[in-house]
Amino acid sequence: MKDKALNRQAYPLTRDMQTRWNDNDAFGHMNNAVHYQFFDTMVNCTLRDWGCLQEADDATRFLVAETGCKYYAEMRYPDCVTVGLRISHLGNSSVRYDLGLFRNEEHSPFAEGRLVHVNVDRQTGRPIAISPDLRRVMEVLKVECEQLRDAESD
Amino acid sequence: MKDKALNRQAYPLTRDMQTRWNDNDAFGHMNNAVHYQFFDTMVNCTLRDWGCLQEADDATRFLVAETGCKYYAEMRYPDCVTVGLRISHLGNSSVRYDLGLFRNEEHSPFAEGRLVHVNVDRQTGRPIAISPDLRRVMEVLKVECEQLRDAESD
Amino acid sequence: MKDKALNRQAYPLTRDMQTRWNDNDAFGHMNNAVHYQFFDTMVNCTLRDWGCLQEADDATRFLVAETGCKYYAEMRYPDCVTVGLRISHLGNSSVRYDLGLFRNEEHSPFAEGRLVHVNVDRQTGRPIAISPDLRRVMEVLKVECEQLRDAESD
Amino acid sequence: MKDKALNRQAYPLTRDMQTRWNDNDAFGHMNNAVHYQFFDTMVNCTLRDWGCLQEADDATRFLVAETGCKYYAEMRYPDCVTVGLRISHLGNSSVRYDLGLFRNEEHSPFAEGRLVHVNVDRQTGRPIAISPDLRRVMEVLKVECEQLRDAESD
Repeated sequence: MKDKALNRQAYPLTRDMQTRWNDNDAFGHMNNAVHYQFFDTMVNCTLRDWGCLQEADDATRFLVAETGCKYYAEMRYPDCVTVGLRISHLGNSSVRYDLGLFRNEEHSPFAEGRLVHVNVDRQTGRPIAISPDLRRVMEVLKVECEQLRDAESD
Repeated sequence: MKDKALNRQAYPLTRDMQTRWNDNDAFGHMNNAVHYQFFDTMVNCTLRDWGCLQEADDATRFLVAETGCKYYAEMRYPDCVTVGLRISHLGNSSVRYDLGLFRNEEHSPFAEGRLVHVNVDRQTGRPIAISPDLRRVMEVLKVECEQLRDAESD
Repeated sequence: MKDKALNRQAYPLTRDMQTRWNDNDAFGHMNNAVHYQFFDTMVNCTLRDWGCLQEADDATRFLVAETGCKYYAEMRYPDCVTVGLRISHLGNSSVRYDLGLFRNEEHSPFAEGRLVHVNVDRQTGRPIAISPDLRRVMEVLKVECEQLRDAESD
Repeated sequence: MKDKALNRQAYPLTRDMQTRWNDNDAFGHMNNAVHYQFFDTMVNCTLRDWGCLQEADDATRFLVAETGCKYYAEMRYPDCVTVGLRISHLGNSSVRYDLGLFRNEEHSPFAEGRLVHVNVDRQTGRPIAISPDLRRVMEVLKVECEQLRDAESD
């Protein structure tokens, strides 16, 4: 599995994030649940950059339907994290983000994850199509992700 | 996927856990990363019950290699969580736990997850066989899980 | 300071809470910020018991104006916490809760804290008088706290 | 109390920190316990800059004896935090840090806190004098803090 890990260059969007002292657990490394705080924040930051603020009273909201993470190496505060985001699937009402976590200046990830969002109507809780404007931005990013991946495997 | 979710009866080990006010995020529901705190704690509690204390200076430790979660319904503080644990795979140095999260008295899970542990030598960081005593306990539990699953599908 | 710590009997309201594996930090003990999650949750649980649900869209909400904690002894997962709550001051729009944290069956606290709530109008953000019904409940509790304290110092 | 709050200029050491999506609680603002994660991390970062790494197996460690926070304004993800650190008291084995939290480019703090550290022997758990080298650095910083405070009140 590890040899198929995508390196930094495969991620069109990246953001540097900080660890906190209490991210480390009794084993002196970043607790496995903290990775999901980075995934979550990265996806939300990206949505905000796209004008999708995800406020509590918005008519629609993205709910998390599935997440996952593979841990390749231990990570610990005070190291910095670069979070990379890709879009690997875009459905009518759902989108799958693939995420890479990179330690300091490292090229290969210490963890890789995914987060599937489903757009739902806040009142009914039912899935609802992603708005055309947002979808267009996501499609462009998805194409860019495929190109970067192809370039990397060359 | 949802229709294959395992209900409470399929879990030989369960433990009631509490939510905290700050588990809820700005959407007023339990943040998706919190589910992993419950998985993590359940696995660790179970290992402790088996005499495997996972202290920081033990010669071997279980590292988390992979985790995942499917979210079927929203959950929120102050609701209580029952965490169910099963063993679905037992390798030489690794074990895969399947986990179910149940809200209050509900029969079907609001989330299902998994956590793969690899037993490693603390000094070298290399995988090392699970001790025979612990392995025996895990094998008994795994058989019990299979029986419960078969009973449920009847 | 330590010798003035209030023991369990001084707290009219108590609630047992659980620690989580990730509450322990790299020193192998409960991180100092986690104590505030217990304070926060205890105060909120108590308000809920009094019918004050503190939903996001309520007309008024209690905001935290001040918190503090003295740490007398280390605490660690998997130990259990009993949280005790007292009311030590009741103003027009504010209330001060004193909290004690007790490890397992111990009689004296491993930490003592406080949390000052100010009732504010959600729209204006300005302090607003605590409702008469809630105030009455708080006053009764405050008197009970004074009696318990007097009994203890006898 | 608010009018005595120290502004950014009063803090000789500052560090920019990031908020995370899950720092916001159901009220849509940063949960009151999160402030302590910033205090904790700032103090630890500073100690590390001074060569005091606070590893789990060091012969001595700083334990938190007391913390506190006053909350002047609501703060929320995705806003950034600048954490300021001052030393307001330096004892034989203890040191008191005063901390200011500043939102984005704001001049006055949205919260002020404190954290008292006691240096203890890891084996005995007893207080032990801060090492002369570290003490010298702390004394210099403390003097600088006093000068900055005097300059501000002029």
